[in-house]
Amino acid sequence: MLIEPRYEGNLGFVARVMKNFGFSNLILVNPVDYGERARRFASHATDILDNATILDSSSDIDKCKFDIKVSTTGIRGKSENRPLRVPFLSPIELREKLSRKSGNCGIFFGREDHGLPNEVLRDSEIILSIQTSEVYPVMNLSHAVCVVLYELYKSDKEELSISANQDELNALYSRISDLIRKIDYPDYKIEKTELIFKRIFGRAILTGREAHTLSGFFKEVERKICNNED
Amino acid sequence: MLIEPRYEGNLGFVARVMKNFGFSNLILVNPVDYGERARRFASHATDILDNATILDSSSDIDKCKFDIKVSTTGIRGKSENRPLRVPFLSPIELREKLSRKSGNCGIFFGREDHGLPNEVLRDSEIILSIQTSEVYPVMNLSHAVCVVLYELYKSDKEELSISANQDELNALYSRISDLIRKIDYPDYKIEKTELIFKRIFGRAILTGREAHTLSGFFKEVERKICNNED
Repeated sequence: MLIEPRYEGNLGFVARVMKNFGFSNLILVNPVDYGERARRFASHATDILDNATILDSSSDIDKCKFDIKVSTTGIRGKSENRPLRVPFLSPIELREKLSRKSGNCGIFFGREDHGLPNEVLRDSEIILSIQTSEVYPVMNLSHAVCVVLYELYKSDKEELSISANQDELNALYSRISDLIRKIDYPDYKIEKTELIFKRIFGRAILTGREAHTLSGFFKEVERKICNNED
Repeated sequence: MLIEPRYEGNLGFVARVMKNFGFSNLILVNPVDYGERARRFASHATDILDNATILDSSSDIDKCKFDIKVSTTGIRGKSENRPLRVPFLSPIELREKLSRKSGNCGIFFGREDHGLPNEVLRDSEIILSIQTSEVYPVMNLSHAVCVVLYELYKSDKEELSISANQDELNALYSRISDLIRKIDYPDYKIEKTELIFKRIFGRAILTGREAHTLSGFFKEVERKICNNED
């Protein structure tokens, strides 16, 4: 998924590398107006462009029902205290995480100048960053997509349908959110703790059974607190 | 080394991905006339373009004194009887080959329409090919360069983040164990829940900061339960 891509050439090149590596489901959020120039860059991948899904805004991402959301960033978080961009995975680590998993994975790339909005980063389970030279770390959008899809294409296609789906994960996250709000944490701590749980569960890629068991556990803990309060 | 590249945009993009992955020595054999357009695509890597070595023809390649010559091809040889294009290495295999070698390695990319001339392929010790979809295997030149340099740049030097040490993890696990025992779970459920937390945190490889934050969270939850019981 490309969020607000600004250059037609990049749109075309992204379609081309997608087809080079066997991907077809392109989603564009509020893209630049595109036409012939994008199609020329797409070369023999104009079908990917023509079949792209267009969303109005990044607040519509949830409609896509992704089981796992991956945000990409060229700016790597430096401090473990600010979990918005850390810890990040490399493309090869993402491949290892996703291999032998089923489900619907959305990979988000931000606009060429500003990258992804913070709310998209915050809402993603996994942060992905490509290891580049410190001298000039900023990659062109289509080359960043190319590297990520190249890595994912290498993975074997074997699937085990054990990973938790979005409903199961959302149920777990709301259990945790409810519980955190019962223990008199200040707001900043609530947000940070929620984010850390999301990052950890995202990296671990929970099974349905695990998500279910943890939801049950957190529900029980909350019930205990509430019962005691009565 | 690009042999007879035909498009200025590709020249610029190749310079950019070279700089992204810490490479600087660009050699162009009989390239298209290039100028402002190439520089625009190069973005902050115009220095790579400006310092490029220009050769008149591929018969001059020997002047570069490469210790090892690598030809890239999008057309993979099918028959082992015709060794012009077989056996080929993947970029990852090339990285493994080169990682234990010193010396001067030339990697050759052919022109956008025809690829490399047969005499260059013949003269190379190694044939390199990127695994792509059979539906549309032909990559743009700059994306092919990007994948190869990305692979070569990748190193195992970089650590994901500082991971939690055994003491931090044990502290977290005992917090969780204490909490589980406060919520009237039967024994078999206690064991299962403890194990699931351990498995998930093990797969996620927690940072020290994450372990610390979660320990704090579970401690707070337990305190809340106990306070309410008083």
